[in-house]
Amino acid sequence: MNDESEFLFGINLINEVLLNRPEEIISLHINPDKKNNRIESVLDNAKTKDIPISTEDENFFINIDGSRNSDICIKCKVRKEEDEKFLESLLGKEQLLILILDHLTDPHNVGACLRSAAASGADAVIAPKNRSCHLTPTVRRVSSGGSELIPFVIVTNLARTLKNLNKNGIDIIGTDLSSESSYNEVKYQDKVAFVIGSEDRGMKRLTKENCNHIVNIPMKKQIDSLNASVTTGIILFEFRRQKSNKPNKIN
Amino acid sequence: MNDESEFLFGINLINEVLLNRPEEIISLHINPDKKNNRIESVLDNAKTKDIPISTEDENFFINIDGSRNSDICIKCKVRKEEDEKFLESLLGKEQLLILILDHLTDPHNVGACLRSAAASGADAVIAPKNRSCHLTPTVRRVSSGGSELIPFVIVTNLARTLKNLNKNGIDIIGTDLSSESSYNEVKYQDKVAFVIGSEDRGMKRLTKENCNHIVNIPMKKQIDSLNASVTTGIILFEFRRQKSNKPNKIN
Repeated sequence: MNDESEFLFGINLINEVLLNRPEEIISLHINPDKKNNRIESVLDNAKTKDIPISTEDENFFINIDGSRNSDICIKCKVRKEEDEKFLESLLGKEQLLILILDHLTDPHNVGACLRSAAASGADAVIAPKNRSCHLTPTVRRVSSGGSELIPFVIVTNLARTLKNLNKNGIDIIGTDLSSESSYNEVKYQDKVAFVIGSEDRGMKRLTKENCNHIVNIPMKKQIDSLNASVTTGIILFEFRRQKSNKPNKIN
Repeated sequence: MNDESEFLFGINLINEVLLNRPEEIISLHINPDKKNNRIESVLDNAKTKDIPISTEDENFFINIDGSRNSDICIKCKVRKEEDEKFLESLLGKEQLLILILDHLTDPHNVGACLRSAAASGADAVIAPKNRSCHLTPTVRRVSSGGSELIPFVIVTNLARTLKNLNKNGIDIIGTDLSSESSYNEVKYQDKVAFVIGSEDRGMKRLTKENCNHIVNIPMKKQIDSLNASVTTGIILFEFRRQKSNKPNKIN
């Protein structure tokens, strides 16, 4: 495989790529012995979009996916993350919900955060360029397709980005257990960016300094943190709860 | 290793077992080349509790932990889950928060659910005896020690348990995307049990039939579910939000 393409696994992810970015799919590969209803439905969808389908044996999947038990995958153009300029396109919105991942490195965490962010209808996810996990095939698979519904923006200098967002009227809210301010007692503005720290070290000092407020999720005292994707889910859905009398109408 | 003991990995888990169940620890094993501050602090703690410590080389850890990079573990008596009788001891409480896992099978999901449940101060987690993941070493490691802070109860007939809980004044709340009722628009009673369905199939029919209410977490329409531990976190912390004017005071 060259740098221009990559294989993606996971039926939910494949479904979402077919729906949202079919032009990026080069080919679809299946093991015909392992068909089931969900795979059939993906195949039908791929046929209507004229995507080349090739049948493969078990060894094909073992070769490219190691030990996982896969029966279907797609070969895609490598997906490029968005760059900082993309953020300008969001600034005019009346309500804005951004998730910032402060140097998370575990693809399972980043994938699960993307799923929570997509489900809550967030407008973008931002991650720093260095020492940080980006939009890899594993992240996309773990996100269960959520990655295909939300822009993933890489910025070279996170502190500068936070300053810029703030200058444009976006409230920057960090999360840290040491804060006295509970996440559900703060009344959020209409345009916010929530910052989630990495699991082992939390938010970086420079990130903290650029937050307008820092909130915590009060929890049982022996526990000192939640999984990053759980924190993300709780905070983003609390924002939605505050902003909408009809939360069923997110879309 | 015989049936009576098992090895546990993960520094957070080891810490919590030392704090909460030191009598279950048979011995502690470390690779002396890999010491760091956190390991030193665990060692100090183990010494004050007279736990035998033995130094091992890398091969010891590879043999019992496969490919993971472990430098410390404990050998423990196998932890027994609680049985149904345990639930009786909870029924007299004025406020009661129970989490019910309806046939979850992935130890990573169950572990993450336990972490969220422990953090929210839930009183117990219930899982059915068959076709369901119980309190394995992996679950305990993934829960990051949360498993040591909360009773894990195995019941032989989940529907019967739901009926019994309900008969004792506990409101049974299921979660399902098809519900019209948003999780944050329902006013919860003081004694509730929340039921989380398995990732691929949701709640079972018989489970649903024994719920007093079913709620959903409204989400962007292309996404049809959240990770089970994220759902757990959002729902349990919404209960806490409703029940407490001072959510910082959970303990």
